[in-house]
Amino acid sequence: MNEINKTYPNWIAVDWGTSNLRYWVMSNNKVLHTDQIPLGTMHLGKNDYEDTLITQLSSFLAPTKKIAVLICGMAGSRQGWKEAPYLDVPSKPPEIKDAINVKCKDPRISVKIIPGLKQVIPADIMRGEETQIMGILNKNKDFDGVICLSGTHTKWVRVSAGEVVSFQTFMTGELFALLSQNSVLKYSVSKSGWDKNQFQDAVKEIMSDNKLLGSKLFNLRAESIIQDFPALESRSRLSGYLIGLELSGSRPYWLGEKVIIVGEDEISEAYEQALRLQGVDTERYLNKEVSLDGLKAIYNLEAEFI
Amino acid sequence: MNEINKTYPNWIAVDWGTSNLRYWVMSNNKVLHTDQIPLGTMHLGKNDYEDTLITQLSSFLAPTKKIAVLICGMAGSRQGWKEAPYLDVPSKPPEIKDAINVKCKDPRISVKIIPGLKQVIPADIMRGEETQIMGILNKNKDFDGVICLSGTHTKWVRVSAGEVVSFQTFMTGELFALLSQNSVLKYSVSKSGWDKNQFQDAVKEIMSDNKLLGSKLFNLRAESIIQDFPALESRSRLSGYLIGLELSGSRPYWLGEKVIIVGEDEISEAYEQALRLQGVDTERYLNKEVSLDGLKAIYNLEAEFI
Repeated sequence: MNEINKTYPNWIAVDWGTSNLRYWVMSNNKVLHTDQIPLGTMHLGKNDYEDTLITQLSSFLAPTKKIAVLICGMAGSRQGWKEAPYLDVPSKPPEIKDAINVKCKDPRISVKIIPGLKQVIPADIMRGEETQIMGILNKNKDFDGVICLSGTHTKWVRVSAGEVVSFQTFMTGELFALLSQNSVLKYSVSKSGWDKNQFQDAVKEIMSDNKLLGSKLFNLRAESIIQDFPALESRSRLSGYLIGLELSGSRPYWLGEKVIIVGEDEISEAYEQALRLQGVDTERYLNKEVSLDGLKAIYNLEAEFI
Repeated sequence: MNEINKTYPNWIAVDWGTSNLRYWVMSNNKVLHTDQIPLGTMHLGKNDYEDTLITQLSSFLAPTKKIAVLICGMAGSRQGWKEAPYLDVPSKPPEIKDAINVKCKDPRISVKIIPGLKQVIPADIMRGEETQIMGILNKNKDFDGVICLSGTHTKWVRVSAGEVVSFQTFMTGELFALLSQNSVLKYSVSKSGWDKNQFQDAVKEIMSDNKLLGSKLFNLRAESIIQDFPALESRSRLSGYLIGLELSGSRPYWLGEKVIIVGEDEISEAYEQALRLQGVDTERYLNKEVSLDGLKAIYNLEAEFI
């Protein structure tokens, strides 16, 4: 706490997702303190948000000064703290003027929530990723190209002239979690570990035969029972089938492009291995770093936050 | 009980699956009593099987006479009561001589478990469905053609000259359950209800574009949020996407064939609607009836069971 008391924070950056609340206590662009706690929007009712925030932040707040809190993510959904209505694509990533104000009881905080983006046809939505896109654009001025925001619901995004032109979400990560943890395959796939060859074989296999997904999934179960096929290899194949099918579907995004991949290390690595197999050049960024970059960029677009 | 006491049972037919234990108290081919209880193999340890059976059956057992109990299903898996090793396809459905004997403490019962079938390439397995196939073959002498055993893990089976020549399993039913109950889609799809037009549209859509499964799944979520797309229609579309992808994959089985569909009414109806859209003629059987037919046929293949 000594370190913090020396430099006083002037704002707080928050990425409030479905599962987790991640925050950075900031002095301008410097991080004084950061933490992640498993109190995402799925764990909270409408009236829990302010208390949750204050509990986390109270030691950083000054008794007499209002501090800015800038939030991205699911806290801005209809079921979250307060709805921040989506901006329609094509659109620049949201700026501070697009953020909504949230009335708080505690006089020490002033809260704004950044809206997500929506696309009407084909219907698609994002919340949190728009801030990551802002982070990428802030780092790569005049960026024109494709971003793959990998995760539970991986999003392929085409950016041109500073605008999100279109995007497409695939439920790949959620399918992997459901199948590896809650389906009959849980007995056949390991909880961790990676076999690059098995993964790449499975990517190739499904990309040449998309229609067999449901059958190939059950093959994993049968192979583990009648051929004792090892669980780590099965896990890699499961991931390969799902990511491979996604690459078939997202081909219009990555074909002939260099792709910026944003995500956790393990999942980004898988996407990178799959894309390189298709001869696609990639560049990787860590999701939490890009979220903070985006929050900083949005915060700095306005001198007077409060 | 009066009815039962008049005619004494001479054997018990049992379908012991992952979720449920279903049994029929029989006098030759006549059902004296039947019941289903939620004590499938997933709820039981190796030593629970005999006690579970005796608790259900004791009122039907004679104190001095051994009664035959013929079981099909997951009770014969490695994790079940006692492993009944798979027969390799091509193979006739198992007969009574292929069933394994299970040693019991209680002198009033004599237990046999019917083995499943396995296929080495592509790796596949079944347990319980082989008995349904026997039921179909017993009803349709000289049957040559294709059976679709719909359910959690739908199995497409090619039968020729009384033998199962090949089969292919799709995880369609389990994917539907996971996605509708455990994924983010649970907020967007209803628990029941059916819209045939939405279902058939979704079947057509995915069959013409298999690669977009993961994306079309997320579209359902986005449509419900930004367009208030109704939950019953979403449920029908979800089912259509999954069954449509399966029909693309199982085309070598059903193309140019009449298909016998075995299953619960609701799921068989969905397969029928999807197949008829492809111009395929179908005939439906109820799964529990066909299981009993198969158990009867296998029991009757041997005069001396005990």
